[in-house]
Amino acid sequence: MAPGRVQANLAILPRDLAFDFLLFCQRNPRPCPLLEVVESGEVEPRDFAPGADLRSDAPLYRVYEHGELTAEVTDLGEFWRDDLVSFLLGCSFSFETALIKAGMEMRHMTCDTTVPMFITNIPTSSAGVFSGPMVVSMRPIAQEQIVRAVQVTSRFPAVHGAPVHIGDPTAIGISDIYAPDFGEPVEFKDGEVPVFWACGVTPQAVAMSAKPPLMITHAPGHMFITDKMDEDLAVI
Amino acid sequence: MAPGRVQANLAILPRDLAFDFLLFCQRNPRPCPLLEVVESGEVEPRDFAPGADLRSDAPLYRVYEHGELTAEVTDLGEFWRDDLVSFLLGCSFSFETALIKAGMEMRHMTCDTTVPMFITNIPTSSAGVFSGPMVVSMRPIAQEQIVRAVQVTSRFPAVHGAPVHIGDPTAIGISDIYAPDFGEPVEFKDGEVPVFWACGVTPQAVAMSAKPPLMITHAPGHMFITDKMDEDLAVI
Repeated sequence: MAPGRVQANLAILPRDLAFDFLLFCQRNPRPCPLLEVVESGEVEPRDFAPGADLRSDAPLYRVYEHGELTAEVTDLGEFWRDDLVSFLLGCSFSFETALIKAGMEMRHMTCDTTVPMFITNIPTSSAGVFSGPMVVSMRPIAQEQIVRAVQVTSRFPAVHGAPVHIGDPTAIGISDIYAPDFGEPVEFKDGEVPVFWACGVTPQAVAMSAKPPLMITHAPGHMFITDKMDEDLAVI
Repeated sequence: MAPGRVQANLAILPRDLAFDFLLFCQRNPRPCPLLEVVESGEVEPRDFAPGADLRSDAPLYRVYEHGELTAEVTDLGEFWRDDLVSFLLGCSFSFETALIKAGMEMRHMTCDTTVPMFITNIPTSSAGVFSGPMVVSMRPIAQEQIVRAVQVTSRFPAVHGAPVHIGDPTAIGISDIYAPDFGEPVEFKDGEVPVFWACGVTPQAVAMSAKPPLMITHAPGHMFITDKMDEDLAVI
């Protein structure tokens, strides 16, 4: 969908939790790459999608109360409150496009599955009620393409940036590379090495485990599509 | 002082303004490159300077009440309150070191003057009570070194990053390159072009113009020296 456009993960929280969540993102920029914050009382991401309305312009939303999923809706009208602050977070689609352009196969795309994700033993830096381990996504990369994969994704710190780990899964607390915590396992070909990137599931998992009275997210795979192009986010 | 170590600008504000100021920094990463936020009730920058005490470990502080300078002290003991949130912001010293290593002369250092700074017509993105124009610093760079200057500073988005403008000062609202708003003017040699970087004076000027009941900063030139090395901040 909309190739080349920046797509965003959504996290919407009441204002009394917003400072701590903003601080959590600032302290953990690799798993929580903040694209834009829309203040309470506002619904338009003026920088990334001028004219859009966050209450209706993502294809599907999930509403959580005290950490429990209570509704899945295409319009947030009945749930919206004036004290809600919206966070748009970078998504791996952007750096995957860069990897594909650089000639790398995304195995989970070839197999039409969801990228395998793992809860690691890498701690995040906590902020207020928000804390927990970093979640990573994993892609098999050919040995001779690893340097290029690092270079290509380093250009995009706003969408997770360079890998957090290359190689031995046990070094970051992953005991079985074929048993992801989220998504589906993928096969490795000869000479391929697991490469791990910080994953946008981290802030959602961390926020959810804090069981806020109300939290709204996009539904998995139903991203908020912005007006910006991936290349707009490159630092070099 | 302490060459190669990351030095930080300090801005300390009451917690009720902290969300808006954090948001202002998130929205304006080039003039306001946030290194670390120390929450209310805490005084230790655990990431950048573990063991340090922000109340006494900068060489000199300035205390402002309602936008007016009311004290200059070496210890914040009598002014400290448990609701203060401290912001450590990146400083141009880090990217100047990178430019010098790449063989560029910093004219203001040769002349032992303060870098010339200008208020531009480039708006910042406002957040709550915080808004105002971007302040930039200017360095004359030889025509043939401009590409390298862009490359070298692009590696350091956490300390202002790449230039915001190269060449014609009037394009960003500067009418006289020899009449800076802050610092002192510098001479140009034949073939040199003015290159402008976002300046850390921006967040302080913006915060000050909001006239908060209390705001504490480091005194000019009396930076908070951290434990990290400039190279630790390079994205590539």
